[in-house]
Amino acid sequence: MVIVMTPDATEDEIEAIVAQVESAGGEAFVSRGVSRTIIGLIGDVEGFETLNLASRPGVAKVTRISAKYKLVSREHRPEGRSTVEVGGVPIGPDTMTLIAGPCAVESPEQTLAAAVMARDAGATLLRGGAFKPRTSPYAFQGLGELGLRILADVRAETGLPVVTEVVAPHDVDMVAEYADMLQIGTRNMQNFGLLQAAGRVGKPVLLKRGMNSTIEEWLMAAEYIAQRGCLDIVLCERGIRTFETSTRNTLDVSAVPVVQHLSHLPVMIDPSHSGGRRDLVLPLSRAAIAVGSDGVLVDVHPCPEEALCDGPQALMTEDLRELSGSLEALAVLMGRRPSAAPRRYLRAS
Amino acid sequence: MVIVMTPDATEDEIEAIVAQVESAGGEAFVSRGVSRTIIGLIGDVEGFETLNLASRPGVAKVTRISAKYKLVSREHRPEGRSTVEVGGVPIGPDTMTLIAGPCAVESPEQTLAAAVMARDAGATLLRGGAFKPRTSPYAFQGLGELGLRILADVRAETGLPVVTEVVAPHDVDMVAEYADMLQIGTRNMQNFGLLQAAGRVGKPVLLKRGMNSTIEEWLMAAEYIAQRGCLDIVLCERGIRTFETSTRNTLDVSAVPVVQHLSHLPVMIDPSHSGGRRDLVLPLSRAAIAVGSDGVLVDVHPCPEEALCDGPQALMTEDLRELSGSLEALAVLMGRRPSAAPRRYLRAS
Amino acid sequence: MVIVMTPDATEDEIEAIVAQVESAGGEAFVSRGVSRTIIGLIGDVEGFETLNLASRPGVAKVTRISAKYKLVSREHRPEGRSTVEVGGVPIGPDTMTLIAGPCAVESPEQTLAAAVMARDAGATLLRGGAFKPRTSPYAFQGLGELGLRILADVRAETGLPVVTEVVAPHDVDMVAEYADMLQIGTRNMQNFGLLQAAGRVGKPVLLKRGMNSTIEEWLMAAEYIAQRGCLDIVLCERGIRTFETSTRNTLDVSAVPVVQHLSHLPVMIDPSHSGGRRDLVLPLSRAAIAVGSDGVLVDVHPCPEEALCDGPQALMTEDLRELSGSLEALAVLMGRRPSAAPRRYLRAS
Amino acid sequence: MVIVMTPDATEDEIEAIVAQVESAGGEAFVSRGVSRTIIGLIGDVEGFETLNLASRPGVAKVTRISAKYKLVSREHRPEGRSTVEVGGVPIGPDTMTLIAGPCAVESPEQTLAAAVMARDAGATLLRGGAFKPRTSPYAFQGLGELGLRILADVRAETGLPVVTEVVAPHDVDMVAEYADMLQIGTRNMQNFGLLQAAGRVGKPVLLKRGMNSTIEEWLMAAEYIAQRGCLDIVLCERGIRTFETSTRNTLDVSAVPVVQHLSHLPVMIDPSHSGGRRDLVLPLSRAAIAVGSDGVLVDVHPCPEEALCDGPQALMTEDLRELSGSLEALAVLMGRRPSAAPRRYLRAS
Repeated sequence: MVIVMTPDATEDEIEAIVAQVESAGGEAFVSRGVSRTIIGLIGDVEGFETLNLASRPGVAKVTRISAKYKLVSREHRPEGRSTVEVGGVPIGPDTMTLIAGPCAVESPEQTLAAAVMARDAGATLLRGGAFKPRTSPYAFQGLGELGLRILADVRAETGLPVVTEVVAPHDVDMVAEYADMLQIGTRNMQNFGLLQAAGRVGKPVLLKRGMNSTIEEWLMAAEYIAQRGCLDIVLCERGIRTFETSTRNTLDVSAVPVVQHLSHLPVMIDPSHSGGRRDLVLPLSRAAIAVGSDGVLVDVHPCPEEALCDGPQALMTEDLRELSGSLEALAVLMGRRPSAAPRRYLRAS
Repeated sequence: MVIVMTPDATEDEIEAIVAQVESAGGEAFVSRGVSRTIIGLIGDVEGFETLNLASRPGVAKVTRISAKYKLVSREHRPEGRSTVEVGGVPIGPDTMTLIAGPCAVESPEQTLAAAVMARDAGATLLRGGAFKPRTSPYAFQGLGELGLRILADVRAETGLPVVTEVVAPHDVDMVAEYADMLQIGTRNMQNFGLLQAAGRVGKPVLLKRGMNSTIEEWLMAAEYIAQRGCLDIVLCERGIRTFETSTRNTLDVSAVPVVQHLSHLPVMIDPSHSGGRRDLVLPLSRAAIAVGSDGVLVDVHPCPEEALCDGPQALMTEDLRELSGSLEALAVLMGRRPSAAPRRYLRAS
Repeated sequence: MVIVMTPDATEDEIEAIVAQVESAGGEAFVSRGVSRTIIGLIGDVEGFETLNLASRPGVAKVTRISAKYKLVSREHRPEGRSTVEVGGVPIGPDTMTLIAGPCAVESPEQTLAAAVMARDAGATLLRGGAFKPRTSPYAFQGLGELGLRILADVRAETGLPVVTEVVAPHDVDMVAEYADMLQIGTRNMQNFGLLQAAGRVGKPVLLKRGMNSTIEEWLMAAEYIAQRGCLDIVLCERGIRTFETSTRNTLDVSAVPVVQHLSHLPVMIDPSHSGGRRDLVLPLSRAAIAVGSDGVLVDVHPCPEEALCDGPQALMTEDLRELSGSLEALAVLMGRRPSAAPRRYLRAS
Repeated sequence: MVIVMTPDATEDEIEAIVAQVESAGGEAFVSRGVSRTIIGLIGDVEGFETLNLASRPGVAKVTRISAKYKLVSREHRPEGRSTVEVGGVPIGPDTMTLIAGPCAVESPEQTLAAAVMARDAGATLLRGGAFKPRTSPYAFQGLGELGLRILADVRAETGLPVVTEVVAPHDVDMVAEYADMLQIGTRNMQNFGLLQAAGRVGKPVLLKRGMNSTIEEWLMAAEYIAQRGCLDIVLCERGIRTFETSTRNTLDVSAVPVVQHLSHLPVMIDPSHSGGRRDLVLPLSRAAIAVGSDGVLVDVHPCPEEALCDGPQALMTEDLRELSGSLEALAVLMGRRPSAAPRRYLRAS
């Protein structure tokens, strides 16, 4: 921790800081400059945080040097980046995982058709929302538990493990009964009660980045989950809010290498929601793999013009085929293998 | 609703749109331009939304003209802007209401001291958090129900009705038992389950703007509350996230007149959290009243350097006195009266 | 200057930094922490900047503590905030100055009518653009020197000194012949050649904040002007670019107290361009004065619906009268006097 | 053009608009809705722009449908995307062009060493700045014409055509004498006088996106150049300003497919300036090619720790070799060929 004093800080004020740090068991190194004094703090940073040093007289600024997240940090896992298994499907540094499915579960037929499209294109996990957080209370809010049952049926049919969103702490147990992986959406990235509930339930978690969140806040949100006992977390960049209006959000591909530098967790990209436009999904997916993403998450729909949610961004069969071929070639170039579908869920036929 | 077709849209595609709109009971007016065709839609907009027109062939863009919120819109209350009563204290167009208190409830003594400071400075409502949504899982998370009991005791002592935050749907009933007004914080503005639970419980709600939210999204969030039966909503601008780093967030004072133009709900400003700096609270509070805000919400602490949360922005006694005098003079200039404290909660002494 | 080393920096790397700093005549204080080492640098910061320390092995981050601007800093003028005189009209901490006029000079009649409106409403300086930087090459680009002559004639008629924009270094001398104050617009805030040319010509400069610029960059831009010999600089906040779309830009009123804390230069607010809406000009002007601005700069037009530029935000006579009364009352409350018009330019009549 | 009337617009106001449009030679189609009326305008849009319709009574909003840029639009060149030749090196849809060199020209030796590094790694154009727009007036501002002479000498030595920045209109002729392509930097993207001067001089122009500019504004800036007779424009995305602080700017890779959809101009990516970190250059370069960029522009330096400008982001020899191999493989995958260096500039040896 580094404390910068104001230009007019007195000797007494400097000494008061030093005394306070030492009485908390730390050490303080004072550098007296021409115009300002800087104090370097050594010791228990969490303890220093409670001293409220920024409010002391003579203090201009307190900067924390070490990261506030621990369990999800790269340092916490010196053996390297993690691989998270979801219903037998690996997501991590050696594979390229395609998660695909409809934005919202609308009916058994639509979900099955989308899942078959997804599987045929090489997807090894099925995504689909039964609970939809919508900006407008008048928009379709999802089928709820009925949607979860549809997903489970489609899993039995296609063999694809299921990734689905949970939006409230009290739904976590119920969703976890059906799902192979819980998704926490962009609007809930700082719903701390939800993060904690998801961290306790024993299923892997896909944590989307808040569209307004810094990378540090995102990793802190992951730390909330990790703290409750779950380290099977996959991060997912899905675009941040900027002034640019030609895309719904601005996909921050730089976040992938930045996160991989700071954390051991796998990180994916969702090119469907960031752009909000079908024609951007293929180029952004390619960019995702090329920048080092551990996979991509895309919306597909058998009939986008009838989708109840985000139809304009859903891929159709021909798009998917192109995506699939393109990603496979890129994965090879990046030294990854496309992750294979597990067979455990397939009904004997 | 206005549909802009792509430059190469065919006659068939245009007619397909018209047919679809008419089969949904609407009317479609076609304007054929040199390079593009525009179709104006008249009829049930919510119905048109479900047609997924943006996904149809030949469609470049669909723009909704009318607002998606209804109950909170200015049109919904032709008689003018609303006044919300909180434990007998009015917040609305005729008054200037000061809400003050500690960011977090830490102890009975600290809360009482802060409340007395607040009341002496003209505050008529007491704010204080028992549940604190914190970016870090290692930071102080609030005293929970114990904190609520402290707030209730301090209310009995000082007569000030209590505004306090709720962070999870399953806490709403419990918090509502103690509080006079529920606060929904910036990180929960789009926690739709929480908004609905708060809207059902029968207490006024203070809805802070998401630091990443547009004004339209904010009004849509209020609509979620309104839809469950509660129109006693007060909006509170608290700064939005921008590239500027000299303040924690950028206070968007323009939001006040913009909201008052669109909605009948009262709107306040929180100058403590937006700036994150004590020296900005007074100037930003003055700007708030001058721009037409129905009140301000400030952090106070008897001893900021010992605060467990947001100490650097809390006002002390002398600051408060200056704030109080300044706001009173401004309120008069703006044709408002400072809102008087109710006496209902005072214990007979 | 503070250097934070990477967690795995070696002793040799630390010592290399110390040696380099000392060989440049500075002192280096090393604080060895549990996970990281911090080095505090004392001495000639500009010299340290050229050492390129951020590129040295083992260095994680280099943070400069002292500001990069000097001449415009508060420390440079210990006697307090500056007052800048423009054609005899003061702009500074004791006055409230209203600058008004048409966005663009279109004709002698329109400019004179706007100037008379402005003067009658209490404006003491006339603004008006003869060179207009426009996003589209197909939009009206201003009358050029003809516009400057019109402004000079209107000054002779009304007595109001003239503030007008300059957009290219080679126009500075010519514009300075006509103008009492040169305005540098938001898109040119980092047009460094223009800043230097304006700083040399001997006229006061109104420097608008770049819509994308931090406060630090804004002060650095002012430093470019100051370095060429001109300290008669007035800063003008005019809104920054954010994700919010209901206003053209987001007026950052917090910038006023922040700048006044860092710099001795006067600072004003332009509420017309930030909002882009006539109905926001009055509330934002009030907020400007209440937050401590040294004045406001507004667009007026005798006939906004015929304006060639930014008509939707121009005030008309009745708006101006209300603005004028409101600002005068607020100025008194803030301990300022409205700045009086000088008589020097009035033709004997 | 579409005009949305306010809910309370009168029949007279609607008819006045229609009359005005018709008197300007246009047609107006009126769609009367339940709550609002919409008027679609057909005819000369530039003419309509001058009518100032947004200021007329009863008008809520005026939306322009067709783009404001023409010469640079996709529609203007129906035969497909353009290829720009720079000293014999093509930049366009069939090739992948690597432009590399030092951020600033510091000395003949440093520039030659960097150019040799660049050429050996497959770069076919040399970049290097002789005029540097710097945030601080105390930072290194470039060698000026001396730097240009060094670039010309290095071109003669290596055969690499030269791309170099110009920062002021009056320098354009001089820079054009030495350079094969003029670069206009992010801070000058809306320096309209500079754009016009560059458009007149007869050399290709590399136009970087303003860090605060929308894609539409960027294309409008290109239109300024095109309007003066130059269509040999290459666009270059280099990151936009957002709230994220772990990278200097946020690279907007989506801009590449968006621009290619709207304009026929080639578009490249600069991964060095957006990230500001050497470790991000390789992954972001790969993302650039995978998203469809026509090339990349990177900083290299023989000795980054001694660079006078942006050392922390410059690549060294080993980085460049990896970059070069990686980009070549990606280019093949994307159906492009690496662009070959021309031989015209090589001195007979």
